[in-house]
Amino acid sequence: MPVNLAPPKPEDLLPVRGVALGVAEAGVRKAERKDLLVVRLAEGTSVAGVFTQNRFCAAPVILCKENLALAKPVRALLVNTGNANAGTGGDGLARARRSCVELAAALGCDSSQILPFSTGVIMEPLPVERIVAALPRAIADCREDNWVRAAEAIMTTDTVPKACSRRLSLGGKPVTVTGMAKGAGMMHPDMATMLSFVATDAAVSQAALRNMLALATARSFNRITVDGDTSTNDSFVLIASGTAGTPAITDEHHPDFAALAEVVAEVAIWLAQAIIRDGEGATKFITVQVEGGKSAQECSKVAFAIAHSPLVKTAFFASDPNLGRLLCAIGYAGIPDLDVSRVSLHLGDVQVARDGGLDPAYREEQGQRVMQQSEITVRVGLGRGSAQTTVWTCDLSHDYVSINADYRS
Amino acid sequence: MPVNLAPPKPEDLLPVRGVALGVAEAGVRKAERKDLLVVRLAEGTSVAGVFTQNRFCAAPVILCKENLALAKPVRALLVNTGNANAGTGGDGLARARRSCVELAAALGCDSSQILPFSTGVIMEPLPVERIVAALPRAIADCREDNWVRAAEAIMTTDTVPKACSRRLSLGGKPVTVTGMAKGAGMMHPDMATMLSFVATDAAVSQAALRNMLALATARSFNRITVDGDTSTNDSFVLIASGTAGTPAITDEHHPDFAALAEVVAEVAIWLAQAIIRDGEGATKFITVQVEGGKSAQECSKVAFAIAHSPLVKTAFFASDPNLGRLLCAIGYAGIPDLDVSRVSLHLGDVQVARDGGLDPAYREEQGQRVMQQSEITVRVGLGRGSAQTTVWTCDLSHDYVSINADYRS
Repeated sequence: MPVNLAPPKPEDLLPVRGVALGVAEAGVRKAERKDLLVVRLAEGTSVAGVFTQNRFCAAPVILCKENLALAKPVRALLVNTGNANAGTGGDGLARARRSCVELAAALGCDSSQILPFSTGVIMEPLPVERIVAALPRAIADCREDNWVRAAEAIMTTDTVPKACSRRLSLGGKPVTVTGMAKGAGMMHPDMATMLSFVATDAAVSQAALRNMLALATARSFNRITVDGDTSTNDSFVLIASGTAGTPAITDEHHPDFAALAEVVAEVAIWLAQAIIRDGEGATKFITVQVEGGKSAQECSKVAFAIAHSPLVKTAFFASDPNLGRLLCAIGYAGIPDLDVSRVSLHLGDVQVARDGGLDPAYREEQGQRVMQQSEITVRVGLGRGSAQTTVWTCDLSHDYVSINADYRS
Repeated sequence: MPVNLAPPKPEDLLPVRGVALGVAEAGVRKAERKDLLVVRLAEGTSVAGVFTQNRFCAAPVILCKENLALAKPVRALLVNTGNANAGTGGDGLARARRSCVELAAALGCDSSQILPFSTGVIMEPLPVERIVAALPRAIADCREDNWVRAAEAIMTTDTVPKACSRRLSLGGKPVTVTGMAKGAGMMHPDMATMLSFVATDAAVSQAALRNMLALATARSFNRITVDGDTSTNDSFVLIASGTAGTPAITDEHHPDFAALAEVVAEVAIWLAQAIIRDGEGATKFITVQVEGGKSAQECSKVAFAIAHSPLVKTAFFASDPNLGRLLCAIGYAGIPDLDVSRVSLHLGDVQVARDGGLDPAYREEQGQRVMQQSEITVRVGLGRGSAQTTVWTCDLSHDYVSINADYRS
């Protein structure tokens, strides 16, 4: 049961002209399951991508980076679930290449104009023949109003598809931004794991798009954690088809850049939070705000120390205001000259600690009341500067252990 | 149920002459529970200690460091469970000081000659009056053959007391090393958490003892993890009473230094492993060996990335040879120039991966067979140097979540 997250209705997801999505059942790992997605892109589309930092990055990630570096127009994305094609060495690379060659042949482009993505079990050979056999069905299914089925086709341990749309106006013309994501343990290697595709019909150069993608990533997918594991396959791709007829945004100084970047970030943040809401075993959505730091980087250290702590996360699961665990995580976050006597802590609207110790006015019932809520904000004041950051996470429940203990069976 | 760890028998624990231990029921948190320990030290005893790096270190840790820095002879240790006296600010410090003053008055020494230790819940006021009231009973109970009851008195979520003894001969004279530890989530802030006291009757200067302690720590308590949290109260203290009549070991070049340091490290390793065997919810004892690194530091990064990964740990709990999770953890361990095509992986005696991918000869049944065992060794080859390291951890089970969700109730 995700935390306050409903599946999208088809009418909520606005088509992006020039971006057509088609799904098929290839039987990659299980039969009778949508597990293949082809996204066809109109001529003139710009594409930018960011990928996992894991050294064991998957074969498709290697190919994506290679193909994007060539700067040839990307004509299609090819996504499979059920198999991550990671930890598969040269053979995995050959299989990923083969799938690109076959899709390129069917679409009449070069194989370097295809970006491949895989998600699923690591270290098993990609059943590329079954994928190739299903390509014609996925291609035949391509439609611009197919986002819900596409979001379903990329799910793994996700319990709901995740997608949303926003509209804005650039120079008086309507522009759409629609995105989808999959992932239920962000940075979760086995499901290997976070994929997100966001598309707009605005016209954006590849350089400006890369910039916009970096800004959105820093505010969204880089601010969430379920279990602290960094996947072999994480990919976030931003697509601009240019079909809206708006003036081309050529760099970050263009008058339309900021407005579009803001909406792209908004969609990315919505998707990133959706991943947490559907986090494996999640029963609570937790926002960790750290302020008063000397730098955003040290605020991040503290926020992630809290968000990664299994003890903090089990306390949230138990609705137990066991707040020493929060102070403790702040203490080991790695700020060597932290003056703990300046640290303050709020749980929701309740001040728990001030000057590094329990607030004398704090009563356990107050903490208990906040802990019962399904959405909880933890606010830490470091008292040493003006930098701040926000991170989203979920609790750690019995179901997390069950899901990850039983996943392959 | 700890993994292959039985409680010590009284006859297994050899007294250390000059080190007398006494326990009492002070009712710190619960009634009718041994929760107070006094350890009296003979005149001429040397003491060295290492403590948590957590910035929110507990009041007793602050006092221990202060008192050790004065270099006056330590005459007693005072340990309570049930309350960590951490995150308690100036009031916590005053309460810890008060307990030292009272014990010093009873023993006829200065309060700076007492080292205090607390373990239990964070951010609650230490009930110092109840501790002071119980001091006479603990002092009256002091005996050199009291190690089993002392090891019981320092338990929190531990399911068995942890203590062991070793003998050696220095210059033809018998020397004893006896130690005890508590902790069930090493680096587990709430139980706040790892305490260990090791004593020998050899004569060792404080400088040499500090050196010996550092060597033992690096090979034992710094090589284990249950959940990656770093406690506010972790303390490891080494005591040398000098009652064995052996020549004083004055520095690390003394002919007896290496022999004694080796046995002290052996005791510390046994205790550190015992903490893992009794790790919260543990069903498996896992040894992670990383070799072929350019430095011990990078080997440690990889070993702890594996040992901290909730996904790796749930796979061990499930006896599921889901080995992609291991490769994935190696990949995100933070070696930026790691050549994954040189990485190899063994699970017990089975080679799973070579040259960065699945070993073609590997069969799932082989991994399955190893995974069923209660003690499992993971061996990673990085293929880039000759450094190596070893880390011990346990699996992540439903019981871990239960224990930590329900701890305060």
